[in-house]
Amino acid sequence: MFRNQYDTDVTVWSPEGRLLQVEYAMESVKQGSACVGLRSDTTCVLGALKRSVSELSSHQKKLLEIDDHIACGIAGLTADARSLAKYMQTECLNHKYVYGTPIPPHQLMADLADKHQRTTQIYVRRPFGVGLLISSVDSRGVPHLYQTCPSGNLYEFYASAIGARSQSARTYLEKHYETFATCSTDQLIVHALQALAGCVSGDDELTVDNGSIAIVGKDQSFTLIEGDALKPYIDQLEQKADNDDEEGEEEKESEAMET
Amino acid sequence: MFRNQYDTDVTVWSPEGRLLQVEYAMESVKQGSACVGLRSDTTCVLGALKRSVSELSSHQKKLLEIDDHIACGIAGLTADARSLAKYMQTECLNHKYVYGTPIPPHQLMADLADKHQRTTQIYVRRPFGVGLLISSVDSRGVPHLYQTCPSGNLYEFYASAIGARSQSARTYLEKHYETFATCSTDQLIVHALQALAGCVSGDDELTVDNGSIAIVGKDQSFTLIEGDALKPYIDQLEQKADNDDEEGEEEKESEAMET
Amino acid sequence: MFRNQYDTDVTVWSPEGRLLQVEYAMESVKQGSACVGLRSDTTCVLGALKRSVSELSSHQKKLLEIDDHIACGIAGLTADARSLAKYMQTECLNHKYVYGTPIPPHQLMADLADKHQRTTQIYVRRPFGVGLLISSVDSRGVPHLYQTCPSGNLYEFYASAIGARSQSARTYLEKHYETFATCSTDQLIVHALQALAGCVSGDDELTVDNGSIAIVGKDQSFTLIEGDALKPYIDQLEQKADNDDEEGEEEKESEAMET
Amino acid sequence: MFRNQYDTDVTVWSPEGRLLQVEYAMESVKQGSACVGLRSDTTCVLGALKRSVSELSSHQKKLLEIDDHIACGIAGLTADARSLAKYMQTECLNHKYVYGTPIPPHQLMADLADKHQRTTQIYVRRPFGVGLLISSVDSRGVPHLYQTCPSGNLYEFYASAIGARSQSARTYLEKHYETFATCSTDQLIVHALQALAGCVSGDDELTVDNGSIAIVGKDQSFTLIEGDALKPYIDQLEQKADNDDEEGEEEKESEAMET
Amino acid sequence: MFRNQYDTDVTVWSPEGRLLQVEYAMESVKQGSACVGLRSDTTCVLGALKRSVSELSSHQKKLLEIDDHIACGIAGLTADARSLAKYMQTECLNHKYVYGTPIPPHQLMADLADKHQRTTQIYVRRPFGVGLLISSVDSRGVPHLYQTCPSGNLYEFYASAIGARSQSARTYLEKHYETFATCSTDQLIVHALQALAGCVSGDDELTVDNGSIAIVGKDQSFTLIEGDALKPYIDQLEQKADNDDEEGEEEKESEAMET
Amino acid sequence: MFRNQYDTDVTVWSPEGRLLQVEYAMESVKQGSACVGLRSDTTCVLGALKRSVSELSSHQKKLLEIDDHIACGIAGLTADARSLAKYMQTECLNHKYVYGTPIPPHQLMADLADKHQRTTQIYVRRPFGVGLLISSVDSRGVPHLYQTCPSGNLYEFYASAIGARSQSARTYLEKHYETFATCSTDQLIVHALQALAGCVSGDDELTVDNGSIAIVGKDQSFTLIEGDALKPYIDQLEQKADNDDEEGEEEKESEAMET
Amino acid sequence: MFRNQYDTDVTVWSPEGRLLQVEYAMESVKQGSACVGLRSDTTCVLGALKRSVSELSSHQKKLLEIDDHIACGIAGLTADARSLAKYMQTECLNHKYVYGTPIPPHQLMADLADKHQRTTQIYVRRPFGVGLLISSVDSRGVPHLYQTCPSGNLYEFYASAIGARSQSARTYLEKHYETFATCSTDQLIVHALQALAGCVSGDDELTVDNGSIAIVGKDQSFTLIEGDALKPYIDQLEQKADNDDEEGEEEKESEAMET
Repeated sequence: MFRNQYDTDVTVWSPEGRLLQVEYAMESVKQGSACVGLRSDTTCVLGALKRSVSELSSHQKKLLEIDDHIACGIAGLTADARSLAKYMQTECLNHKYVYGTPIPPHQLMADLADKHQRTTQIYVRRPFGVGLLISSVDSRGVPHLYQTCPSGNLYEFYASAIGARSQSARTYLEKHYETFATCSTDQLIVHALQALAGCVSGDDELTVDNGSIAIVGKDQSFTLIEGDALKPYIDQLEQKADNDDEEGEEEKESEAMET
Repeated sequence: MFRNQYDTDVTVWSPEGRLLQVEYAMESVKQGSACVGLRSDTTCVLGALKRSVSELSSHQKKLLEIDDHIACGIAGLTADARSLAKYMQTECLNHKYVYGTPIPPHQLMADLADKHQRTTQIYVRRPFGVGLLISSVDSRGVPHLYQTCPSGNLYEFYASAIGARSQSARTYLEKHYETFATCSTDQLIVHALQALAGCVSGDDELTVDNGSIAIVGKDQSFTLIEGDALKPYIDQLEQKADNDDEEGEEEKESEAMET
Repeated sequence: MFRNQYDTDVTVWSPEGRLLQVEYAMESVKQGSACVGLRSDTTCVLGALKRSVSELSSHQKKLLEIDDHIACGIAGLTADARSLAKYMQTECLNHKYVYGTPIPPHQLMADLADKHQRTTQIYVRRPFGVGLLISSVDSRGVPHLYQTCPSGNLYEFYASAIGARSQSARTYLEKHYETFATCSTDQLIVHALQALAGCVSGDDELTVDNGSIAIVGKDQSFTLIEGDALKPYIDQLEQKADNDDEEGEEEKESEAMET
Repeated sequence: MFRNQYDTDVTVWSPEGRLLQVEYAMESVKQGSACVGLRSDTTCVLGALKRSVSELSSHQKKLLEIDDHIACGIAGLTADARSLAKYMQTECLNHKYVYGTPIPPHQLMADLADKHQRTTQIYVRRPFGVGLLISSVDSRGVPHLYQTCPSGNLYEFYASAIGARSQSARTYLEKHYETFATCSTDQLIVHALQALAGCVSGDDELTVDNGSIAIVGKDQSFTLIEGDALKPYIDQLEQKADNDDEEGEEEKESEAMET
Repeated sequence: MFRNQYDTDVTVWSPEGRLLQVEYAMESVKQGSACVGLRSDTTCVLGALKRSVSELSSHQKKLLEIDDHIACGIAGLTADARSLAKYMQTECLNHKYVYGTPIPPHQLMADLADKHQRTTQIYVRRPFGVGLLISSVDSRGVPHLYQTCPSGNLYEFYASAIGARSQSARTYLEKHYETFATCSTDQLIVHALQALAGCVSGDDELTVDNGSIAIVGKDQSFTLIEGDALKPYIDQLEQKADNDDEEGEEEKESEAMET
Repeated sequence: MFRNQYDTDVTVWSPEGRLLQVEYAMESVKQGSACVGLRSDTTCVLGALKRSVSELSSHQKKLLEIDDHIACGIAGLTADARSLAKYMQTECLNHKYVYGTPIPPHQLMADLADKHQRTTQIYVRRPFGVGLLISSVDSRGVPHLYQTCPSGNLYEFYASAIGARSQSARTYLEKHYETFATCSTDQLIVHALQALAGCVSGDDELTVDNGSIAIVGKDQSFTLIEGDALKPYIDQLEQKADNDDEEGEEEKESEAMET
Repeated sequence: MFRNQYDTDVTVWSPEGRLLQVEYAMESVKQGSACVGLRSDTTCVLGALKRSVSELSSHQKKLLEIDDHIACGIAGLTADARSLAKYMQTECLNHKYVYGTPIPPHQLMADLADKHQRTTQIYVRRPFGVGLLISSVDSRGVPHLYQTCPSGNLYEFYASAIGARSQSARTYLEKHYETFATCSTDQLIVHALQALAGCVSGDDELTVDNGSIAIVGKDQSFTLIEGDALKPYIDQLEQKADNDDEEGEEEKESEAMET
């Protein structure tokens, strides 16, 4: 297809009714290291592969605390993600200050999605180049797993995975997600790590250094499990599996901008 | 036709007196999953096909409550639709707060259409890439079915369908709409599902999972019928019919920007 | 002529001293369905052909009440027309509120024409793609028929017609307009319908469904005549006449931007 | 000359030190119907050819009252002229309100010329496409005839003519202007009509319908002479003269932007 | 040289470190009719050639009173000059109002030069297309002759000439300027006219109609000498001299933007 | 790759999901002279190579005091760096004034990264062309070494090096960083200089003139070591080592915009 | 190199990490007439070649008083320089007014450099086309010589020279600068003139007319030495020296934007 004419401005429709700049921004998400999310009936677990830019650096934080009951995993442009995370943290504080209660997750999600949407319609900005997995627990203790993307779309998932080589993780999650509802937190963590293990690039491995787990749950405030605390779970992982033959399906998910 | 020169800016007329960017945005509506609406003398029913981006996700909401007496079905860019829905919900709340009565549907529609129109005339924005079917009941209990499109046009319909493969649904509705006036709510629902059934893509089917029905009526506040509640109606559906040979007519409707 | 360079921006003159974007917007008026206006010494009558986007929709409103003493017929982009009508209605309300008297039609017209003019001189907007026929009665009971066009020009007419195939109607009006001054309202309506009949496209006909008449007069507030009420007048219509050989003249009228 | 590069933006100089967009706007003036002005020691007379867009319309107003002591004749884009006239009328009212005296003509002229100049220097606007002849009487009863053009230049004339075929009128005025100082008002009117007569296009004629005269003078408030009141003067006109061989000189006047 | 890329925007440097748009604006100055200035130890004299756009018009004013002690001669775009003159007049009035004393000429000059400079650095404006010769007397009675140009540069001269064919005048002034210091006002006027005489185009002549002289001096408020008052001085003029062979040097002066 | 279309605007995504303008700005960092940073458990040391534009100039400052407990080393566009340093100094002062305590380093870093991020998303600005190494001590006395880059990314390092030929320094730091935790301040300084020595361009050498060291630590306010004070440390340096064969790896670090 | 794509906008990075518009602006500095600066331990001397646009004009001021203790020499676009000088003068006055003490030179320099930096990052402005040499004395009586350039960089020098043919002066200064610290003011002036002499263009000479010296020092307020006062120093000058063979090195200095 000849895309030249319609793909350098976010306020310009292509003749096929597509916003190409938004689709390009989605490519940025696919290049971030993988992030997975899954939930039982009481708990929501995020897992992520941390990258380090060099041997000398700490690993980049991939799982952020937004509030006691909300966590956020990122894939894509880190600077954009940090800016969005800060926005969410401020919204949470404001809500607590004004109403005295934690912000309802769905309300924060609606505001966040709107913030994305505006960058896809107004001339002077580019769309955010980041996808977010957001785990949360609402006021009744029910966990929710949300996913945003550069288009401003918002999805609720039973389980999901975004970022580089995430198709492998999605395949794993699709095989097992029906069993998650009644899993214990420990079981969920092992599932998350198992899914992540498939996203590690060829000659690397999931370790206590590059793995990271964040939990929010019914009676469980935001908890980050990294480093040695992660060791018992890593030890339970099965063999790294079938993540090679499925790469071809990768595009399917991110382009679904319409409903 | 050589469109290059006049189709990258919404503030530029083509020599034929057309706004090509608005027409491109209309293409986005045609790619959304189908949405139908129809009404009797007392009740207005919306039906929609929900898409799910993957096995792991919930189905996307397609029918939204705007107010007790107003519902909204969407086809096109979800993020734009959500932003417009939020606008309408706020308008309804403001009207209730200021006047103490529900907003008259035609007034909300006029404001909404104006909001669309502005994006087609001012430089720094793109037209919304979404079509809306809005069912409502006015203060005398009379139901109205409105349709908006990216051009800012506003139509009132006896029955309508928008989105992918919606020509099939329109054909069904044209055959039967003269009987709708006296239908019971249950009959309207079955008609809506029957129309929707023709819009399902080739190897798929209308089920309790992807179907969705929303009702507003004279003495009936907004009610959503999904999942198991939908089962009795699905069971009454006839065979999926003649949706193949009519695709060619699809363009007719959406390009009618002038009166 | 090679127009490329000067026709994509409303703030750019062509070397011939023309504003090509304004002329393109005028093309949009020619594509709207026809609208006619004519007046006697006491009454002003508008007539319009209503289009319906499908069998399922109501016909689009073409004749709008602006105030008790002002009516408006539109040809062109509906969304722009609605936005302008809303502006006029608000102006009328404001004038009544501030001065306690109906707005003098010529004053409303001057404000409206200015609103058009600004879109032809300032960078960030496009010209409106709509022509309006506005019938009104001033404080002395004298009827006026105004016409606006995208250039911001304002004309006063004895009788006029705009929109698709309107040349036929103009020819009819030119033949008879000298007799209008003393016509009764009923005679004016028949003249309006007769003129409209020539604007119906080839295989269609003027009926009680697609015809519409609006009256304002000395002692006559805005009155809309549609549907069955229109029947007695339709019945008096002569045969559809000579609208084929005159299409070639169609451009003459709308390009007259200078005086 | 290769003008392409420097002629689409009013804020861009051509390498020859010209503003081509301003020159293009001047072309618009040459396409308006003719307008002439001349003055004696006590009176200033404007004359204009009114165009009508069709047999059905009133003739367009070409001579406007700005204030009791100021009249304005226009050639070019009507919508721009009306917008400028409104500006002048408001300035006159404001001056009267603030100082209790009529605005001095030269002050109004300076403000008007500045309003033009700004559109030739600032990015977001186009130059006005209209030339104005403004007749006025100052506080000592001395008449002045001013001419503006799109460049923002302002000239004072003994007599002048602008618009289509105005070269003929200028030739006439140059032959006779030395006698104007002591003419009676009636004689001035006949001179104005005589000059106008040469500007009528080939197969047309100056009549009481398309002619128009406006007078302001020492003890003479703005007076418009049209229709039957114009008859006695038309009857005195000589034969239509020599307006054919001089068209070639037409460009001379309007391009003189520098002094 | 290949200038295309860097010469359509005033905010863009060419690779040679030049602002081509500013240089183009300087061309506009060279096309205005000539203006000369010279001063003795007590008096500053400006002389100008007035152009008239036609036989019917008054000659354009070329020498303007800014204040009692400041006069201004212009060459280039008249509309820009008038706008700048108005700015200076307002500054003079403000200074008098605030401080009760005439504005010091060098302070007005600094403000004026800054006003020019801004148009050469900010995106939305073009540089002024006019050069000014400004004669003034400071509070100690010392005369100053300033010259501005579109670049925003400001020069102080013993004597200068700008506009079309001004090289001839400059040659004359260079020959005689050393004698000016002790000249009487009458002698300065004759020198100014003598210099101007060389700037008249080939088949024209310096007369009481197109010549104009303005004087400000130690005990001499702004005085304009035109028409018959100019006759005694014109009569003293020598033969028109050597203005033909020196045109080639014309560019030298105006391009000196750097120091 | 064909980059032309997507690399001249920071608000435009390339089809691969990259922001090319941000990557180009990163090139600017690689051209600045080298800067290294490393820390023990109590102290953070920055080292930099100062460049002098000529023999006649002082060396440019490369290590700046932001606050008592925060220092900053720069590589890239000096003017941008100075502007960012000023911003940070102001933030530190404000925090002290409002809260009475030194600003927590991580909070300053988050604000700084946000300031970068905005220049990569909003139309009217370019990304900053500078990389910063920021050493700091938090309220518990723990040292932190941060690095920013034009993308708005923020990294925490054990040790790092940026600027021209910095790969050599990174190689040195990777070999020894495990021993840094327990180093004395003097040892850290020697390590920093040793790393820097590899970054000096071919025919030059690390001396007391071009070397510079800045220290912040647990009980150590910002201290700059330059000139003669640096002599004892320079004397301890080993031979300049292996910085030639590793240049090829240089790009690796700076392009890691995603996590 | 192919520079076309990245060199017309100051907010666009070239793929090599350069801001080409800033480099082009630097060319403007090289075209200004030369300016030198040097300092002893107590005094700072600026010298400049004044250009005159014609025999008739005064020489342009090249050395400006900013405050009692600050002087400024300019090379490049005069209008930009004057605008910056005015800015500095205002800052000095404000500081004196607010704090009652002279502004510390380094603080003024930081503000000035920031003013430059903003024009290199924000869309609507071009970089200043001028280089400044600024001599100053701080509150302890220590002289400082600063140099700014269009990039917003700020250098402190022992001695420096900018403008056309300034390489010759720099060569002279490099030979002798080590002796300047203990020079008397008279000796510094002779050194400055000696350096300047090498910058005079081929067939010209340094004279009391085109030379100019400005002094600020420990107990020495701003003093300008021009005309006859300069004679004794000019008489001491040696022969004009070796400025021909070194032109090739000219570019070296001004492009050093990074540190």
